[in-house]
This record gives sequence, C-alpha cells and structure tokens, in this order.
Amino acid sequence: MFPSKVYVLGVGSIGCLVSTQLAKISDRQIVLLLKDELTLNKFLNNESTLRYENLINLRNPIIQDFKFKALSSVPKNQFGKVDFIENLIVTTKSYQTLRGLEKFLPALNKNSKVLFIQNGLGVIDKLNETLFADPETRPQFYQGIISHGAFRQKKFAVKHVGLGDLKIAALPRTIPTFNQQEEFVNSTESEQNLVPDFIQDIIKTPILNAQYLDYEDLLVTQYEKLIINSCINPITAILDSFNGELLKIEEMYPIFSKIIQECIDVLTKSNLNTIRNHQNFNILLNKERLINVVFKVAEKTSRNSSSMREDIRSLNETEIDYVNGYVVELGKKYNVYTPYNRLICDLVKAKLSLNVYRNNDAIKMTL
Amino acid sequence: MFPSKVYVLGVGSIGCLVSTQLAKISDRQIVLLLKDELTLNKFLNNESTLRYENLINLRNPIIQDFKFKALSSVPKNQFGKVDFIENLIVTTKSYQTLRGLEKFLPALNKNSKVLFIQNGLGVIDKLNETLFADPETRPQFYQGIISHGAFRQKKFAVKHVGLGDLKIAALPRTIPTFNQQEEFVNSTESEQNLVPDFIQDIIKTPILNAQYLDYEDLLVTQYEKLIINSCINPITAILDSFNGELLKIEEMYPIFSKIIQECIDVLTKSNLNTIRNHQNFNILLNKERLINVVFKVAEKTSRNSSSMREDIRSLNETEIDYVNGYVVELGKKYNVYTPYNRLICDLVKAKLSLNVYRNNDAIKMTL
Repeated sequence: MFPSKVYVLGVGSIGCLVSTQLAKISDRQIVLLLKDELTLNKFLNNESTLRYENLINLRNPIIQDFKFKALSSVPKNQFGKVDFIENLIVTTKSYQTLRGLEKFLPALNKNSKVLFIQNGLGVIDKLNETLFADPETRPQFYQGIISHGAFRQKKFAVKHVGLGDLKIAALPRTIPTFNQQEEFVNSTESEQNLVPDFIQDIIKTPILNAQYLDYEDLLVTQYEKLIINSCINPITAILDSFNGELLKIEEMYPIFSKIIQECIDVLTKSNLNTIRNHQNFNILLNKERLINVVFKVAEKTSRNSSSMREDIRSLNETEIDYVNGYVVELGKKYNVYTPYNRLICDLVKAKLSLNVYRNNDAIKMTL
Repeated sequence: MFPSKVYVLGVGSIGCLVSTQLAKISDRQIVLLLKDELTLNKFLNNESTLRYENLINLRNPIIQDFKFKALSSVPKNQFGKVDFIENLIVTTKSYQTLRGLEKFLPALNKNSKVLFIQNGLGVIDKLNETLFADPETRPQFYQGIISHGAFRQKKFAVKHVGLGDLKIAALPRTIPTFNQQEEFVNSTESEQNLVPDFIQDIIKTPILNAQYLDYEDLLVTQYEKLIINSCINPITAILDSFNGELLKIEEMYPIFSKIIQECIDVLTKSNLNTIRNHQNFNILLNKERLINVVFKVAEKTSRNSSSMREDIRSLNETEIDYVNGYVVELGKKYNVYTPYNRLICDLVKAKLSLNVYRNNDAIKMTL
C-alpha cells in the first residue's frame, strides 16, 4: 500500500520549510494547495519548485530545490469527484486560515488529520465556531509550535537562519473551558495517542527537530510563546525597532510587565481545568521569569526584525488579533479586564493604517 | 512712580512671544532670566535681541527685533543685595520649572505675582509641595493658557503662525481637593480680584488676544486643553506623524475614546467641589463632544508636528509627565485606574529612549 498523500496549505516560510524537509526523507506525495490560479501559474513558472536554503552555518550554506505537485482548488479523483484529504498541514497566516481552508472543506471529514503550524492563538477556536461547528464531523486537529528562524525573501523559497524545534500535539475534539467544566470529548483515548504516519515522518526529519507531546505539555509551550510574542512583536512594530533595540530601552520593563500581567490573569482564569494541575503551571505563569524570558529572546534574536514589524513595513495585515487580540478575547470571555493589550492592538493597527495611508497618498502625489 | 519691572523666565517660543508683545506696548522694563551664563553670553552675542516674526498673513510678514536686559542669576540691587521680584512670567517647559525657579527663590515672597504660561498641568501642584510649601509665604500665582500657534526655529526668535488667545486667572492660594473639602484660603477676596498691572498690560497687547477670567472658567479651558493634548501629542509622538495624519487612521477613534474616558473619570472624581457646579461642567466632560473637539483640533492643525513629536525627534525630554502623566497622578490620588494613559506615558518615553540610543549608537559607529 502506498503511503497516503500529504497536502500543504500555505507556502510561506514555514510551509516551505516543512514541505521540503518532509520531501527530503519521504517518498510520499506532497501536494501544495495554493490560494488561487494566479499563484499556481507563478508556481508552475517557477518550475514547480520550492527552494530550501540552509544558512545556519554560513561557511557551508546548503541550497536544495524540490519539485512539488500543486493545486489551486479542491483535489478531485479521476472521475471528477472531490478527493478526500486525509493529511493536511496548514501554515497560512492566522488571519488567512478561515478563508484559505473554506475552499477545501468538501474534501475534509472526521477522518482527516489536520496539523496547524502557525504563530498566534485562537485560529482553531474560530474554526470550531464556524467551519467545523459539529464536533462529531470535525477532523482531528493537531497543533504544531515551531521555533525555527526562517524567513522568505522571495516567493517559493525559505531562508533557514536559526535552528529551533517543532512541538506537535493532538488537540482534544472539544477543548474544555472554565465555565463548562466538561470532560474531554475525545474520540477515544487510543485515537488521540495514535500518532498519524505523516506526523511520524515529520518527526523523523533530521532538521525540523520535531517531537510529539501531550496536549497539556504543548499548551504550556504555546502560552509561553504567546506571551513572548505579545511583548516583542507589537512593541517592535509600534516603535519600528529591531528586537535587540528593546534591550536598550529603560521603559521596556514596565511595558512588558503590564502586558504579561494581563496574560497571566487571563490564562489563570481561562484554563484552570486544562493545565492548572500541570507540573509546570506555576513555573509557566511566574511573572518575573516570563519578563526575563522575553528579554532573553530579544537578546537571542537581537538582529531580527519581528514578523509584525515587517508586515507593517510591507503594508500587510498583521497577526495582532491572534496574539494580543487573543488575550483580549479571552479576557472578554472570562471577565478579565485587559486594557494594556487592547491599546497595544489599537496602536499596531493604527501604525499599519498610517503606513497604508502614506503609501496611497504618495501614489496619489506622483500621479 | 515708575511701573514695576517684569521678569520673564524661559525664552522659548512662548516667552519670546509674550515678552516682545509686552515690550511693544509698554515702557516698563522687562528683564529676561536666562538659565545660565552660557545662555546669557549667547544672548549678548545676539545683540540682546529677541525677534518676533509674524507669519500669520504670509503676504505681509512682519519681523520685529526687541532689545532686552537679561540676567542669569538672581537680580541684585546697587548694594549687592537680592532684589525683590514683584512680577514674574514663567514660560519654561513644565519639567524645567522647578529647577529653573529654584535659583530665583530668594527674590520671591508673598507679594510676588507669578504668571505661569505653560503646556501641561501639575507644575503648580509640584511647586506648592516643594519650593512654596507654606501657603502663607507663597507668591500669588496666576495661570495663563495660550492657544497661539508659535514655534522657535532658532534661539531668541519666535515664528508666530497662528492667531490664538491667552486666558489668565488668579489661582487660589490653596487649591481645594476632593478629600479636604476645605474653603478657598484666599488672601482676601479683593486681592484675588485685583488684576496686577503687568497682567493688565498683557491684556492690552493687540496681538496676544488676552483676557482675564475667574479661576473656575480657566479650569474648564485648562482641562479641555489637557484632554486635547493628551490625545494628539503622545499619539503623534509614538506613531511619528503629523497632526493631520491622525484623521486618516481608523483606529484613532477607539484610542482617543479610551484616553478621554480615563480623563473624564479622573476629573470627575478629582474636582467635584471646584468645578462641579460650573455651568459648563457637564458640557466639558461630555465624551462624544471631546472626541469631536480632538479631531477638529487635529484638522485645524493638520500640517503641524506636535511639540511632543518634535521633542522626541530632537532627543529632548517631553512634557508627557505633565499631560498624560498628570492624568495618571490624579488617578493615583483619587483612586481611579488609568491603564491607557499609563501605557501611553511608557510608550512615549520608550520612543524617546530608542531615538537617544540610536543617536548615541550612530555617534559611536562614526567614531
């Protein structure tokens, strides 16, 4: 029996990184799902190739090209009927996920396995409320958290600049909330513990440095990443600075402290019954430790320009609604007041609006 | 009898504007109090001249030079003894006032009349707590609120670009607070109602468009200006934008709304017994009206770069502690939570720190 296909939605830096590394070790067919025909044509003109550039050891850079099959619409079989998508990796930007997935809905069912590797939180909550409202027919979702340093300078290519890791866990079919106090509605214990074969392949890749975790362990990692991102990303975007410059600003400590305190308040209230008994819960939500972690990450990535800052500079939508905006949403849900994260969201959006206005205005002026 | 001298502390744009206009209509001696000998020498090298440029009608610009006497230390009489300062106008930046006034303390007493014309609030509170802690020996303070458009391009010169007005009132010797519920401790009714002759002169100048008000009326104006400044100044400073660009940013409404709501909450609690019975109190603190006023001011001054933004660009300290910082201080005092104004203060200071760091770093790089 042939191993089943793997579809990949989103070919930004993460999609490119994961697809090429998976292709390197596996014979299984990988199919890129591109957002429209225009992108498909661009990909075909690019000789159906994704490029992986490993720049981690600058004395020994590695460039590798991989050819992929690609589609811009729902996959169909030889009889023109919609083909079932068993394995799907989603790496689109958070805010593009709903629109990106919608088209492929007919090919997904409860036997599909969907792995999300994205920044920010709240995407799966939104999917569960909209496209997959019925827990009985919902695919099995997996969450991946990636810490590799990778960026895209041109389309269909990734520059891999920092080794990190990739943590993956199966999500419960229904995420229990503080109010509901309900039990996990897992399909079965065993189904959740069974690691799908395409994820086993990902774990085997030498470069991605991936591991499979319990959901609770992943949540701890995920919340820590959320908190780090909620500090570094918006502040570098608002002040228009490199990550490392944050270390030179005396006022960063009180600002991070304010943002983090709200994250702690919200997470403490929202996930009591999911991770409150986790061995690392008290460590996770220790404020002084978190502030230190944020400064350490800013130091380690000091020459980086955050994705949010870069989005604003290139007039793209940011993921703010899935970072600080997620904290605000949780705050609303669990009745925690989150003024600092709210104002941060507004200011990031204001900065983008200003740049968009200046750009449009500049265009008008030269006409 | 000769009319008494008028001393002026601070020769920025406001000091320059007021001194030259007063000199134009009055024979009385005006003496500039300069901050140090270096500044005094620069002034003497400038032929002891302040320049007033009226650019309001650009087809008919007016340039006038005025010679002034100047000192950099406390005035002394012919016997070398400290001379009493009867009339003093203070136009320094808010945060420079304490340090600026300290040197001249020996020349001030309860018979001195001191008119403060500054942006921001809280300076006089600070003076009353420090230099003039005893209400019995404290000079009579007057507050001026100026709305003229004026800026300084070079030292000892002011460009007057927009006609505004100047509102002046006598301050009660003790400002009653919400907690104390005490009566005004005025020297006497009549003393407060007596308009000092140098202020009468200011009111006579044709260009300053000055008027004398009751303290309560002035407070209403002053709080309105505080609220406008607390929106436009820090946001243009943080986003690095012209005033008019704020009109192009969709997110300005929720941001202004947040800042203003806190101002309203704080002012409502802090000044109940001073202006709650004022006929304009409910109008003053109407939120929708205030938001509209802020947008109107941004429109009217659309090509202006706010003083706070300019301070940050030229790496000068800002008046943030006397604008949004004043709201935060009042909030602490009257137990009103002011997270939005707090974060705004931190971000303005962070932006300045970043620019200072970049400037120093740039210097290092070229060494």
